[in-house]
Amino acid sequence: MKEIRIGILGFGTVGAGVVEGIQKNGDLIAERTGIVPVLARIADLDIETDRGVDLPEGVLTTDAMSVINDADVDLIVELVGGTTIARTFTLEALKQGKPVITANKALLADFGEEIYKTAREYTTGIYYEAAVGGGIPILRAQRAGLIGNHIESIYGILNGTCNYILTRMEREGLPFETVLAEAQKLGYAETPPDLDIDGIDSAHKAVVLASMAYGAPVPMDACPTKGIRGLAASEITNAAELGYRIKLLAIIKDNEGEVELSVEPTLVPQQHMVASVSDSFNAVFVKGDIVDDTMYYGRGAGRLPTGSAVIGDIMEAAADKLHGVGVPVSVTMMLQKETLPYCPADNIVKRCYVRLCLKDRPGAMAQVMTIFGKHNISIASVVQKERHDEGYAPVVILTQDARESEFVAAMDEIEALPVSSCTPIRMRLEDFE
Amino acid sequence: MKEIRIGILGFGTVGAGVVEGIQKNGDLIAERTGIVPVLARIADLDIETDRGVDLPEGVLTTDAMSVINDADVDLIVELVGGTTIARTFTLEALKQGKPVITANKALLADFGEEIYKTAREYTTGIYYEAAVGGGIPILRAQRAGLIGNHIESIYGILNGTCNYILTRMEREGLPFETVLAEAQKLGYAETPPDLDIDGIDSAHKAVVLASMAYGAPVPMDACPTKGIRGLAASEITNAAELGYRIKLLAIIKDNEGEVELSVEPTLVPQQHMVASVSDSFNAVFVKGDIVDDTMYYGRGAGRLPTGSAVIGDIMEAAADKLHGVGVPVSVTMMLQKETLPYCPADNIVKRCYVRLCLKDRPGAMAQVMTIFGKHNISIASVVQKERHDEGYAPVVILTQDARESEFVAAMDEIEALPVSSCTPIRMRLEDFE
Repeated sequence: MKEIRIGILGFGTVGAGVVEGIQKNGDLIAERTGIVPVLARIADLDIETDRGVDLPEGVLTTDAMSVINDADVDLIVELVGGTTIARTFTLEALKQGKPVITANKALLADFGEEIYKTAREYTTGIYYEAAVGGGIPILRAQRAGLIGNHIESIYGILNGTCNYILTRMEREGLPFETVLAEAQKLGYAETPPDLDIDGIDSAHKAVVLASMAYGAPVPMDACPTKGIRGLAASEITNAAELGYRIKLLAIIKDNEGEVELSVEPTLVPQQHMVASVSDSFNAVFVKGDIVDDTMYYGRGAGRLPTGSAVIGDIMEAAADKLHGVGVPVSVTMMLQKETLPYCPADNIVKRCYVRLCLKDRPGAMAQVMTIFGKHNISIASVVQKERHDEGYAPVVILTQDARESEFVAAMDEIEALPVSSCTPIRMRLEDFE
Repeated sequence: MKEIRIGILGFGTVGAGVVEGIQKNGDLIAERTGIVPVLARIADLDIETDRGVDLPEGVLTTDAMSVINDADVDLIVELVGGTTIARTFTLEALKQGKPVITANKALLADFGEEIYKTAREYTTGIYYEAAVGGGIPILRAQRAGLIGNHIESIYGILNGTCNYILTRMEREGLPFETVLAEAQKLGYAETPPDLDIDGIDSAHKAVVLASMAYGAPVPMDACPTKGIRGLAASEITNAAELGYRIKLLAIIKDNEGEVELSVEPTLVPQQHMVASVSDSFNAVFVKGDIVDDTMYYGRGAGRLPTGSAVIGDIMEAAADKLHGVGVPVSVTMMLQKETLPYCPADNIVKRCYVRLCLKDRPGAMAQVMTIFGKHNISIASVVQKERHDEGYAPVVILTQDARESEFVAAMDEIEALPVSSCTPIRMRLEDFE
């Protein structure tokens, strides 16, 4: 039996989950792997608050650097969050040749290239399973099980808060603001909730998935991002009537050599498995050219599920260190190329759901259809509802595939029509064909 | 760049898939991992048939032993099938210290203990991702991503042929025999189909999953097994009317320290994700004590999907060999203990679906209910249908949890009742609570 001595930076929710998991199953882990995980040092500015776990004296410290510098600490688990001191600590540990495990998607999205290159330069590893999909071993699937595959597409429900809000809005017919407020009260959503509900957190994870799929760091601005803020319950009802459900979906595709990325509320067919991912669960669909369709599902956040992913990485880093692996695949896969060809947001071809409000005037619909036609947008279906008392009728349109730039132009023209009585709502529609 | 020289034994469907995958994506794999996969030698008794792939002269041979003995071959991929020469080849390669990759679930189910122990003795590895779930990286999830988890339960749809048959029976209302015959014509089912439709193939995979979850070789007789042969279309309809779908489900549970295994047709709630796994797809649900619910989905068979899993294993075995890992976790995890405590089939507690035919006599239902009561079986719901012309009425009963031995005794007594006009049909019902 060998020992691996673990230093943890940040003793918050996930840090406590890692400690709880190792204390509970450390013996089992050692039996399975031949390596004993030892909680050597844990640093946090607050070492007084009770985290519900007991630790031997001397493990806790307020001095993170002393943990990184401790010659008896074999690897560093970075759970401080944010992208400033987390970056400093991560780079410092790597420069000392110590592998770093992190759950920090923002750090990887913003400073991934620097971090991967530092790991490579100092012949060590950065491991980040917990950064995407919480407890789901999705990155490991990509970099090990599917290593023989060119990735054709990835669809991800990557943010549990948004999925929880959308699920409750749909099931209970509640408005966005009500569910968000409740989610915040229950601790399912942060205050302020912007990172989650504006899609930023999903985009952080999407660029990590895309980097691994296509072998180069992907900048955040390659990922056009829209969240679910202010989504009207009526859109969910309209979608349901047409056989669709709305999910905040990250989409990554190899678009004939160009990488297409986006995060946006998307209509998905009710009978597709992606539609059955509910509550705070996450799921990632990966299509490889050899393996075809695969899917990975589980809890995308939370003390113990995220802890599970961190523990998996700790043991992999431990084995790599003991065997002198040096630079692991989690680093080499991100640095195959300097950069990737991206599909500009304007060129993305997609189907859309469009909801308009048209005044009750003869020829109103004809004017709208003329604009769509002019912009090469074919219509798959139109539903005009009974007009409201206010004298306008909601119109729901599903389009065929068309270019984003054409959609933008058409929406501008439609909004400017005198018969248009509200700002048109537009969402992507994905039928996975 | 380092090279790994691959020897393949068996150039059938999967063998050709492995070759196609490596020829297509070999450069990509090398870029990602720093290791170049080289198809060094391929042995098959038939080296004339065109497999749709080109190979350099000298690669093909009819002499498998010459491939194993070739000092220029670094690892062996065993794809000959069966459990006789496959066993011989596997043991011989391991004894020469060469890692073996296999897709052979029958071999592992029947001779796993001998194979794992031989690998350990000769300080090398056996890798078998492709043996369970085809292209789905499910074993890797268990032994890496979820390494920190005690496994509470596993539910698997592990046989694509059965799932294809069940899906078509349900969608099209066709009889079992018709769909089976068509599946055989289309190549989705073998001739004879026994291994698949009698549940043996699923049981082979279930014992491998259970071995890895609980750390000891699991004998096939620890897994009570029933297939879908002769399942009546009316059972599928009855189940649907009650909100359930029938799946051939492998169930593995930690039953308060005893391992419970079974493979049998099982009613699952229509709204559970397991019910939405259709056609020839496989899925495995794993619940860990830290990570909670996770799920893995993909193609459970086929030339390329299985090839994808084999290629993943080849590259892991290559990395392990280059780094001198010795005995990998895929071996140590199977040999933590000599044996496991199993829950005897008679003691398994489950809910059941029961379908009876009762003659149209006063008191008939009372006699049935008295028998259930005597055997401590509570009834959750009863549906008696309009009686048939033949003078009997089908009765569908869903029970609460009860012990298998009580079900067996009750069914015997009910069948012997004069008012019972057919052999009762009984299936497990699982609501995942």
